[in-house]
Amino acid sequence: MMPEQNSLLVSYVELKTQLKRVLLKEGFEEEQAELLSKIFAENNLYGKESHGLNRFPSFIDSVRKGFVKKNVEPELISKFNAFEQWDGKLGAGPVNALRCTERAIEIARKFGIGCVALKNSNHWMCGGTYGRKAAEAGFILLSWTNAIPTMPPWGSNDPKLGNNPLVIAIPRETEEIILDFAMSQYSYGKLEILKQQNKFADYDAGFDAQGNITKNPSEVLDTKRALPIGLWKGAGLSLVLDLLASVLSNGNSSFQIGKQGSEYGVSQIFIAINLAMPAIKENSKEIIDEIIKDFHSSKREKENEILYPGEISYKKRNENLKNGISINEFQWKQLLEM
Amino acid sequence: MMPEQNSLLVSYVELKTQLKRVLLKEGFEEEQAELLSKIFAENNLYGKESHGLNRFPSFIDSVRKGFVKKNVEPELISKFNAFEQWDGKLGAGPVNALRCTERAIEIARKFGIGCVALKNSNHWMCGGTYGRKAAEAGFILLSWTNAIPTMPPWGSNDPKLGNNPLVIAIPRETEEIILDFAMSQYSYGKLEILKQQNKFADYDAGFDAQGNITKNPSEVLDTKRALPIGLWKGAGLSLVLDLLASVLSNGNSSFQIGKQGSEYGVSQIFIAINLAMPAIKENSKEIIDEIIKDFHSSKREKENEILYPGEISYKKRNENLKNGISINEFQWKQLLEM
Repeated sequence: MMPEQNSLLVSYVELKTQLKRVLLKEGFEEEQAELLSKIFAENNLYGKESHGLNRFPSFIDSVRKGFVKKNVEPELISKFNAFEQWDGKLGAGPVNALRCTERAIEIARKFGIGCVALKNSNHWMCGGTYGRKAAEAGFILLSWTNAIPTMPPWGSNDPKLGNNPLVIAIPRETEEIILDFAMSQYSYGKLEILKQQNKFADYDAGFDAQGNITKNPSEVLDTKRALPIGLWKGAGLSLVLDLLASVLSNGNSSFQIGKQGSEYGVSQIFIAINLAMPAIKENSKEIIDEIIKDFHSSKREKENEILYPGEISYKKRNENLKNGISINEFQWKQLLEM
Repeated sequence: MMPEQNSLLVSYVELKTQLKRVLLKEGFEEEQAELLSKIFAENNLYGKESHGLNRFPSFIDSVRKGFVKKNVEPELISKFNAFEQWDGKLGAGPVNALRCTERAIEIARKFGIGCVALKNSNHWMCGGTYGRKAAEAGFILLSWTNAIPTMPPWGSNDPKLGNNPLVIAIPRETEEIILDFAMSQYSYGKLEILKQQNKFADYDAGFDAQGNITKNPSEVLDTKRALPIGLWKGAGLSLVLDLLASVLSNGNSSFQIGKQGSEYGVSQIFIAINLAMPAIKENSKEIIDEIIKDFHSSKREKENEILYPGEISYKKRNENLKNGISINEFQWKQLLEM
């Protein structure tokens, strides 16, 4: 835990360099150490601090405990034209997720749409990362993961559902549109940060031990009763995303992950769609720009900006590249000592 | 408007027969009259009364006004292996949606996954209908539609987003899993029914004219500020589903539909995945059954049942087949007089 909230500014390159040094020391070979340090550092760079350096010590801990296997690459299990099943062999989640995103793109390049179902993987950190990679290559990505149960079905007080983040990414010439959200109103990563900051959530976050709805992150972290987005709707979406991930990958469901006691061996889906197809290519830029222009023209209720999904990440990236990334001092010292 | 809430029991066959009689009288040919009467009557049969007989008079009104073209069939515009674009030619929404679901299934049969993007269509009524049709054929369906703007972006009081229902359907041996929800916490159809019944919503439904969150359906219908599911998350999902539907179909966006003033010419996506592929087929039943068994074993908070998405529809269908469908007397008389 972090005893205080002091922070310092660290450049992206310095953050990545230190992360890579630790990964190499832990026994990752050059290619995976490069890839993983890039993804963790990018998560901080793009303002996704809940899944950047914040999670790195627990990632290394998972490696040491053997839940995450070093230097493992995913393997093709079976294929049927535009659909493939891959085995993540309990390798590093970000490596597997990136490889399967790239593979879904290759399939979509050939067939228009491509689906990779991945089993036996691990936490991918920030799912938006893979959305951004696909969108930068000119492809739509629909992707999701299952997770250890942390959220009850609607009308239950019994955590059975994962928060199962869903990612939908859409290319633009600059600053892609990247939706990335968990099925709980607040991710547990966000609730952890709020708790560390001694803050309450702005909106209802979940249930307390008495079954009342609360904004107190500590109580929700204790009861593991996060509020599903849209109440019964998000609870239903979580179940369905888990069913799809498990069935299509022939991998672990949230139920089976829960039985293990620790979150490893998760199932994930990567669906890419090729925007370079002739009928789409000609008009996609105009259609997207028109929708975003109208969206940005919305009357503001207060002083807030009206931002499309992912837009804030590009603003943060630009700020962070210019000024350096604000890093918690305790976390930074911890990294330097690893 | 319905002056009173008296209801009577009507058999599915009788309801379908009366609907078909009106459709034939309005100039629909046998095949489309049969298909449309079946879909409207099934929506009541499966407990989706917000998109059954309730909407039939306004559907007929749209036909008479020329927004919905009679006896039109969708047409293939372009294709690239597992991806196809179709033109709905402003035909009846349920006809177009069913044809495109069937076409996505045929593509998925060949490629494992198949995507149909449909432009120039009309309101599909209950999206779960097409999920059920796909699941009954053994296929997963991911499908969504855009719609006229009725919901503001997060932080805005300006309706720019459609409620853009999302459907995800998963086959089972009996009683398929069918998620079908709009991006607003309550659909406008549901809010209309609550208003007709002089009831408030159980949970927050949207904003009143003063910008406060309210459970009063009338106020939300007036301000057109429905609460997005998951607040900023559902607002983001609505935008992204509209972008995907418009770009992939090269069709109207919610923005363009809003400019028309009436909802017609919507864009829709149908993605089918084939569960009969060898690697999936062998284990899918066991995986689904295990997840659902665990889900149903959830501790209940109160006396409520823990139901998966769509489960209530099968219970209602079975009750309605046995006892008849409870139909609003005013609506029934209105139908008989059409």
